[in-house]
Amino acid sequence: MGLVCCTPNFSTSDPEVVEAILEALRSVEGVFVLDHTYDEHYNRLVVVFAGEGEVVLEAMLKAAKVAVERIDMRYHRGQHPRIGAVDVVPFVPLAGTDMEYCVELAREFGRRFAEECGVPVYFYAEAATRPERRSLDWIREGEFEKLEEMMAKPGREPDFGPRKPHSTAGATAVGARKPIINFNVNLGTSDLRVARKIAKALHSEKGGLSDVKAIGVYVPRTGNVQVGMVISSPDRTPLYRVMELVRLEAKRFGVPVVGAEFCGPVPLKALIDLVRYYLQVEDFDEDDIIEVALAKAMGRWPS
Amino acid sequence: MGLVCCTPNFSTSDPEVVEAILEALRSVEGVFVLDHTYDEHYNRLVVVFAGEGEVVLEAMLKAAKVAVERIDMRYHRGQHPRIGAVDVVPFVPLAGTDMEYCVELAREFGRRFAEECGVPVYFYAEAATRPERRSLDWIREGEFEKLEEMMAKPGREPDFGPRKPHSTAGATAVGARKPIINFNVNLGTSDLRVARKIAKALHSEKGGLSDVKAIGVYVPRTGNVQVGMVISSPDRTPLYRVMELVRLEAKRFGVPVVGAEFCGPVPLKALIDLVRYYLQVEDFDEDDIIEVALAKAMGRWPS
Repeated sequence: MGLVCCTPNFSTSDPEVVEAILEALRSVEGVFVLDHTYDEHYNRLVVVFAGEGEVVLEAMLKAAKVAVERIDMRYHRGQHPRIGAVDVVPFVPLAGTDMEYCVELAREFGRRFAEECGVPVYFYAEAATRPERRSLDWIREGEFEKLEEMMAKPGREPDFGPRKPHSTAGATAVGARKPIINFNVNLGTSDLRVARKIAKALHSEKGGLSDVKAIGVYVPRTGNVQVGMVISSPDRTPLYRVMELVRLEAKRFGVPVVGAEFCGPVPLKALIDLVRYYLQVEDFDEDDIIEVALAKAMGRWPS
Repeated sequence: MGLVCCTPNFSTSDPEVVEAILEALRSVEGVFVLDHTYDEHYNRLVVVFAGEGEVVLEAMLKAAKVAVERIDMRYHRGQHPRIGAVDVVPFVPLAGTDMEYCVELAREFGRRFAEECGVPVYFYAEAATRPERRSLDWIREGEFEKLEEMMAKPGREPDFGPRKPHSTAGATAVGARKPIINFNVNLGTSDLRVARKIAKALHSEKGGLSDVKAIGVYVPRTGNVQVGMVISSPDRTPLYRVMELVRLEAKRFGVPVVGAEFCGPVPLKALIDLVRYYLQVEDFDEDDIIEVALAKAMGRWPS
């Protein structure tokens, strides 16, 4: 038995569509939906679900079909870059599986999704077929609005499916990768320039941390701005370093950090790093947590 | 089925005696030894083990008998206050059990241990028979060296067993309580006065935090001093508050905090508190950890 996690991002925040997608996933026996989050300003749904590889693949196909039927990208607005209704589908190895297996799953899912729904598919991250395609930024260049134009350019043909966007569902990036962390830090200001400057200071391609992508966005719900970040290798770039650097940069604008949030569940390892740094307990490990030690001793720990 | 955790403290750091005690625990089917730590300067062994209540009780009796046979308190020296070979035996409720059940276990263990080994037993914490006996400090007053004298005083008769110490094993405190955290902070100085002043600033009965007991000790292994603390209600007094207060007090002496360590595994809740405070993610919960969410979804989480 091998467990795989899948964290698809869909371009919707319509509660009815969200429910239909979740229902498609839950209808597959052996699928565990661990988390889902969506909000209007990103206009995006992130689902985290897990199970055995083949079960996850089937459930993902069912959910993707619902999204293609229900989401019309021509009317989609949102602050997060996106190319399609089923914007990105990453397979992540958990207990008893490895990256190679997740690459296979990604390829199989991409092939079947392109064939059955007519949506062009790009493979990214560990499943990429060429070096430049590893990056979601490269795939998403021009976003949904310029997708047809971009896809026509040399070297930008999809890995599977037609060489033009699905009329309402755009295109989809399918990949395999290690767990990432989506971490958003809320600032005590409505000044979007401040959020963008801090985002720039953190971003890997703008002088920041090599495993961080960051954007500054306005959050209508609170009236404040937010630095939205993806940490692609939390093993190398722990949360404390990201958070303390945001605080450091915010200080120059006299802007306080008023809170933060994760989008989706985080790996336990991220909490271990906090103990090591903030409490200076250098050799702390997951076995030092009583519930984890007990679950392991009883043969019940899933990784 | 109900799980109970037991974290007995034995007055030894002799590797052979430690091994004999662990072996006695492990020999009982259904016992999970999660952790054990011991060192010379405390001259003390702390074991964390868990299992179903009755199994834990039987294993604890076996281990206690080994300790009574192998440890001679007349020759024991150590920096931690103690009254006996089996110094303290706390039962802690886990999944599916409550405090009432742990009080019953404590009473049953105390009665049988006193009868079968001739060691006087005091009930403490939630198992105490009188208010003043809730406190280990009260029970340990004068330590092993003055035990006979103290026990003869009015109101200090043991709850079970003879009214004088076992000649080599002293007396034992047996109780039921919520999980506690033993947290030791290492300072960058060999000056014991600094550790003692910081310990005083933290201690509940000296103007410090109401759930913290603290002592300053010298650590021969490193040549530095340490503030050794017990946090009796980590739910009310989270680790960040303790750590930041130690840092604050250390600052006035110009002494750095060079590291820290836990004695025994910590409850997961303690890590949740770190995320909430240091990362300002106010609504973070154990379900936001991917492995925990998955273990729960699969019906494998032990609490």
